[in-house]
Amino acid sequence: MSIGRLCIIGVGLMGGSLARALRSRGLCDSVIGCSRNVEHLKQAQNLGVIDEYETDIQKAVRDADLIVVAVPLGSMPAIFQRLSGHVRSDAVITDVGSAKASVVEAARTYLKSNLTHFVPGHPIAGTERSGVDASFAELYQGRRVIITPLPENDPNAVERVRDMWIQTGATVQSMSVEHHDEVLAATSHLPHILAYALVDTLARMSDRDEIFQYAAGGFRDFTRIASSDPVMWKDICLSNREAILGILDRYTKDLGLLRSYIEHIDADKLESIFRSAKEARDRYTDEQR
Amino acid sequence: MSIGRLCIIGVGLMGGSLARALRSRGLCDSVIGCSRNVEHLKQAQNLGVIDEYETDIQKAVRDADLIVVAVPLGSMPAIFQRLSGHVRSDAVITDVGSAKASVVEAARTYLKSNLTHFVPGHPIAGTERSGVDASFAELYQGRRVIITPLPENDPNAVERVRDMWIQTGATVQSMSVEHHDEVLAATSHLPHILAYALVDTLARMSDRDEIFQYAAGGFRDFTRIASSDPVMWKDICLSNREAILGILDRYTKDLGLLRSYIEHIDADKLESIFRSAKEARDRYTDEQR
Repeated sequence: MSIGRLCIIGVGLMGGSLARALRSRGLCDSVIGCSRNVEHLKQAQNLGVIDEYETDIQKAVRDADLIVVAVPLGSMPAIFQRLSGHVRSDAVITDVGSAKASVVEAARTYLKSNLTHFVPGHPIAGTERSGVDASFAELYQGRRVIITPLPENDPNAVERVRDMWIQTGATVQSMSVEHHDEVLAATSHLPHILAYALVDTLARMSDRDEIFQYAAGGFRDFTRIASSDPVMWKDICLSNREAILGILDRYTKDLGLLRSYIEHIDADKLESIFRSAKEARDRYTDEQR
Repeated sequence: MSIGRLCIIGVGLMGGSLARALRSRGLCDSVIGCSRNVEHLKQAQNLGVIDEYETDIQKAVRDADLIVVAVPLGSMPAIFQRLSGHVRSDAVITDVGSAKASVVEAARTYLKSNLTHFVPGHPIAGTERSGVDASFAELYQGRRVIITPLPENDPNAVERVRDMWIQTGATVQSMSVEHHDEVLAATSHLPHILAYALVDTLARMSDRDEIFQYAAGGFRDFTRIASSDPVMWKDICLSNREAILGILDRYTKDLGLLRSYIEHIDADKLESIFRSAKEARDRYTDEQR
């Protein structure tokens, strides 16, 4: 496959790594980066991530064959609104947002005639770092990418987005928007919220300096995701509100049960929950090796 | 310092690693291991962790100069009871339990005249693995060990326990039993409970197989501690019940606030909590580098 002219809107960790991966395989004729921040764009150009840049989004997308929107979820609606009417009718558009229902809603509102060529996507990859200087060509290698094609989609557009991700070394799976949002709420959004909440609780304690001194390896691993970008995660929480509230309530109920077993010294129940959790985790991490 | 004859009761990850560290520095005349499980003891001897073994605890401690009790918290009272009256009056006793109030209560009940020489200790080290085959001499290098000396303690006994840990490469700090239990509830016990509860919640979902498929790096880090030994953690939860319930309730309240900010789309509050949590975590992990 050849991508032709690639336009990356939002050249951070995700967009930058995608551009690097596709360029390193010689799949793009040219890569144009677009962002509000010209310093970030210059940095991306200096790093060899993009060939050229443009801060005016309507100019940036004009001749593009493939457009990847890699901005925080909260900025998606404004980006789609500005794209509208300026994208070639045969250009394929995709995104990398961690929640899909809100992105699809914005796309339906603003992309109109381009909707047939908008294929929502979400690569399950990333680190707690952000920005183009954290980007690298191998980010997606061996990772999973979920695409959530729309009923309106042109099948060729879906195939082009799938092919693009396969070229980065990822495996691609399709699912519905709703199912994506539930699965990600459980496996990614909830753990981030729990980790942020834990650091927040400890940081509010009067003896926090001493407490953090004694936080050892397990704590560091557990809270690594609380070093993620606060703006991005505020957006994710609000964009996937319903699914997150659902799984958070389920978790809070289960945690409440655990609490009651501790309070009432129910050793058997405690041990059995810990044991089945350990077995479940050991089983799936073995499978992923 | 010379330790003389060292007796390790419970030759697992913690006890085995301590024996290895002290032996590798040539500090022990002999090391005797004690456990109910003779197969484990033979394995420890074959691995060169101990010189000899004995399943009868009263024989094992008879000639020991220093006795380290490295059994799960739930087994401590029974061990102290059996030790009682069989330990030399000048022998120093310590433990490695992750909660201290319950250990001290058991020691006061059973150790009687040996209490002056019982110095409670807790090395902040470990991995999610367990057993003597997971032990290694460097486990305590650069780690913190908390000792919680008792008012009854002979100062020389306290110094001998402190010296022992320093020889393993650890730094040693003293604090009260109560303060230890609060600090550890916050930094270690609570995160373990949260991680176990998360895996438990997901493992109960009907689409759990698919859900675990999409669990990426962040989730794996977050839940690593849920692969810890279930019996050990059941014991810890019950041994440090009060402090754990206190911090768990505080956490649940903070998590409930976060939930309400998501529900009511309070972007500013969400972002500000995430930002201050990220700053707190980045600050203390920088300090620990």
